Amino acid sequence: MADVLTSKSKDYAQWYNDLVIKADLAQNSAVRGCMVIKPYGYAIWETMQAELDRRFKETGHKNAYFPIFIPKSYFSKEAAHVEGFAKECAVVTHYRLKNAEDGKGVVVDPEAKLEEELIVRPTSETIIWDTYRDWVQSYRDLPILLNQWANVVRWEMRTRLFLRTTEFLWQEGHTAHATEAEAVEEAERMLHVYADFAETILAIPVIRGVKSESERFAGALNTYCIEALMQDGKALQAGTSHFLGQNFAKAFDVKFQNRDGKIEHVWATSWGVSTRLMGALIMSHSDDQGLVLPPRLAPTQVVIVPIYRGAEELEQISQAVQPVLASLRAAGIRVEYDARDTHKPGWKFNQYELQGVPVRLAIGPRDLAAGQFEMARRDTLEKSALPFDQVVDRVVNLMEDIQGHLFANAQRRLNEQTYRVDTWDAFLEQIELGGFLSCHWDGTAETEAQIKERTKATIRCIPLDAPEEAGVCVYSGRPSNRRVLFARAY
Amino acid sequence: MADVLTSKSKDYAQWYNDLVIKADLAQNSAVRGCMVIKPYGYAIWETMQAELDRRFKETGHKNAYFPIFIPKSYFSKEAAHVEGFAKECAVVTHYRLKNAEDGKGVVVDPEAKLEEELIVRPTSETIIWDTYRDWVQSYRDLPILLNQWANVVRWEMRTRLFLRTTEFLWQEGHTAHATEAEAVEEAERMLHVYADFAETILAIPVIRGVKSESERFAGALNTYCIEALMQDGKALQAGTSHFLGQNFAKAFDVKFQNRDGKIEHVWATSWGVSTRLMGALIMSHSDDQGLVLPPRLAPTQVVIVPIYRGAEELEQISQAVQPVLASLRAAGIRVEYDARDTHKPGWKFNQYELQGVPVRLAIGPRDLAAGQFEMARRDTLEKSALPFDQVVDRVVNLMEDIQGHLFANAQRRLNEQTYRVDTWDAFLEQIELGGFLSCHWDGTAETEAQIKERTKATIRCIPLDAPEEAGVCVYSGRPSNRRVLFARAY
Repeated sequence: MADVLTSKSKDYAQWYNDLVIKADLAQNSAVRGCMVIKPYGYAIWETMQAELDRRFKETGHKNAYFPIFIPKSYFSKEAAHVEGFAKECAVVTHYRLKNAEDGKGVVVDPEAKLEEELIVRPTSETIIWDTYRDWVQSYRDLPILLNQWANVVRWEMRTRLFLRTTEFLWQEGHTAHATEAEAVEEAERMLHVYADFAETILAIPVIRGVKSESERFAGALNTYCIEALMQDGKALQAGTSHFLGQNFAKAFDVKFQNRDGKIEHVWATSWGVSTRLMGALIMSHSDDQGLVLPPRLAPTQVVIVPIYRGAEELEQISQAVQPVLASLRAAGIRVEYDARDTHKPGWKFNQYELQGVPVRLAIGPRDLAAGQFEMARRDTLEKSALPFDQVVDRVVNLMEDIQGHLFANAQRRLNEQTYRVDTWDAFLEQIELGGFLSCHWDGTAETEAQIKERTKATIRCIPLDAPEEAGVCVYSGRPSNRRVLFARAY
Repeated sequence: MADVLTSKSKDYAQWYNDLVIKADLAQNSAVRGCMVIKPYGYAIWETMQAELDRRFKETGHKNAYFPIFIPKSYFSKEAAHVEGFAKECAVVTHYRLKNAEDGKGVVVDPEAKLEEELIVRPTSETIIWDTYRDWVQSYRDLPILLNQWANVVRWEMRTRLFLRTTEFLWQEGHTAHATEAEAVEEAERMLHVYADFAETILAIPVIRGVKSESERFAGALNTYCIEALMQDGKALQAGTSHFLGQNFAKAFDVKFQNRDGKIEHVWATSWGVSTRLMGALIMSHSDDQGLVLPPRLAPTQVVIVPIYRGAEELEQISQAVQPVLASLRAAGIRVEYDARDTHKPGWKFNQYELQGVPVRLAIGPRDLAAGQFEMARRDTLEKSALPFDQVVDRVVNLMEDIQGHLFANAQRRLNEQTYRVDTWDAFLEQIELGGFLSCHWDGTAETEAQIKERTKATIRCIPLDAPEEAGVCVYSGRPSNRRVLFARAY
């Protein structure tokens, strides 16, 4: 096919941007930093939402909705939170426009100035904990297990489609508990929910870990995270789950009477994933031909393209295709038949490769006579003949094969690109090549900051399964008892 | 039960507000005019969303997402639209806060002022048509059939939970077509989708009609609407679908080459329903005991409440309930078993009545011995015995019965409260009593404005099925050839 994308090896960042645009996933809008999520991109996001939402509900959570605006003063109530979130944000100062006096358009009405400015939510801990105060009196009112699907705004100077946008879509879970142990258990549970979702649906293997203190969410006592490795060797944080301790309960005065009749502050968690996952998905599986989609996420899993001249040939092919469509649909396969006469088969082939449809079945007069399709697998680009009577079995199996193959490939890449690095020279060399660097670290924020300053690498996480192991810090030479993962990250 | 709500007959507005709060549907937030939609209210909204979304997709639409911010200048591009929408809105003027110099909290950073202010979308025609310009060159690119689920903000001075809030949730469909006929057909199709949804899912009978010119959407050539009648005799607009002509295509320069090779402007529609439907739902069916929910919308359709003393009795009851739960679930019924020991049965009965659970099954030791439940129907408040072996059949049938009964009741009320009014004196008398007034109108905006000024009544719609009928305007005495519906409205 024609090279519609910049090649990955030539310019990974440009390849990514080309792919997002050409595969019709998203585009920049007229508003700086805000994207338009196009129907094809949104359909993938909807499947992610449905899979996550089901998992949240299975673990006892319900959805709710809180205001998009947060009074400015709320951000000052939790000391760490204000530093982390109240800075680069969209500020609403007025509530009315009026006709310009020169007759040209509209201007802000200076008389409609708000007494207190409103912030478009960058995250909702403050407004939610302000609300929880009225909901909780007794241990009987706990736990509160809520999630919200919402848009949030963080004013970003440098933006990239899906990966870092001023407005993005996400879900944010906010839970309230009677005990510390229960809150910690919840934060860990949701980490595993995210990891399971990433691995089984997105086919992205992830490292489960905790953040170092410097990398924690603003206001959290502990931030759990899942970290993935992109094809270019950079890490991407794919989801976080925070144990917030009693910080927000104290800031917003949320107390309850426990079973012993004593008044205590409530314990909190919050956890979220966003449309950033679309970026992780793209950079885990795709190639120079375009997007590669795991079948469980693909809006269209199979496309059937007729190759014909004239209405009569099309009619014959369509008659043979109809029962195949019906049986694939009956087997739960999302299949489309693209018989449009406005586009040539070659254009369609390119388009479906660009958009990552897992399986393409082509059929011309010769295939029809032979009672078979020409099947093309998107992940391997392999072609083979597929007899009509084997279609359902083969396609159903192939969905699982492709899903498993994508995960296995990504897992192999993750394993191969995770390096044990024990000297500072080796660190400096490897960090330029990419991957996770598994290193001893002395546990100080100072060392972490110096490494970041010198190499742009951050501690992605301290893996949950990292064994106790005596060693010396790769930078300072001071003692360490556990390896952490460093990487450059998106 | 205790009177937890103000009675409808005493103060309908207070009853409504009490119900929304006490049934745990929503509450006011700390941000003026913005509500918190609580989990129970949100679960009902989610069912509405799912039902609508399925219908949108069945009629060929896909979802997408456009930015929440719209540059101020966009509103000036469509003359009528700016008058209707660019006035009372949230204006973002800055993008950064900084620490206050006195050390107390944060202040807006005057150096982070936007060159052009951004408006939090009150509706998205402008930003969407600005985007469509790049998507459409040829008739092959049409139609575009998109929908967006989003939050929107309209700065309201007087707000009421669900009915009129500064921020609300909605869907907005935006379609682009090659011909006028196709756009008109689309606008009408979506009107009927809304009407079918309102009648079959919400059990709310609606009048399908078109708005008078004065009541049209800002920028529309024709506004189709569904109008419902609330229990207090006031009308509520439950959904609108607009034929926008080429107004937005002209304002945003969206042109295409038609099949004959000529360049034309694109034809448009938009259509939306919002969380306002929650208000319509409440005011169509509920009573002094609380919410009454149509079974198709109820998050919980059946609740089973054990009445017991001690663990042993509970254990015996639970053993009998388990197979019933399983068979109801297998039959697709959303059933909960509330065996909580933190609340008494009487409290639970009140709560489920307040929250409108369609069927309650209570079971104590005596019922257990008799092999039956005590069944209470929420809509009629009737009680009867329900033998174990009849549970599934009776409950499944009852779901349809209740759904149909609610619709029939509302339909009877609508019919009874639609009055043919032919004199101005009769108009003045009837408008105080409520209902739809079916009247002749001379077709002028002037008469419409005078009637509104004198009575607060507006033309709700010109019904699509209004027959040609010679008459004289109820106000001016001038000739008229069709009746329209007047009412006071929410």
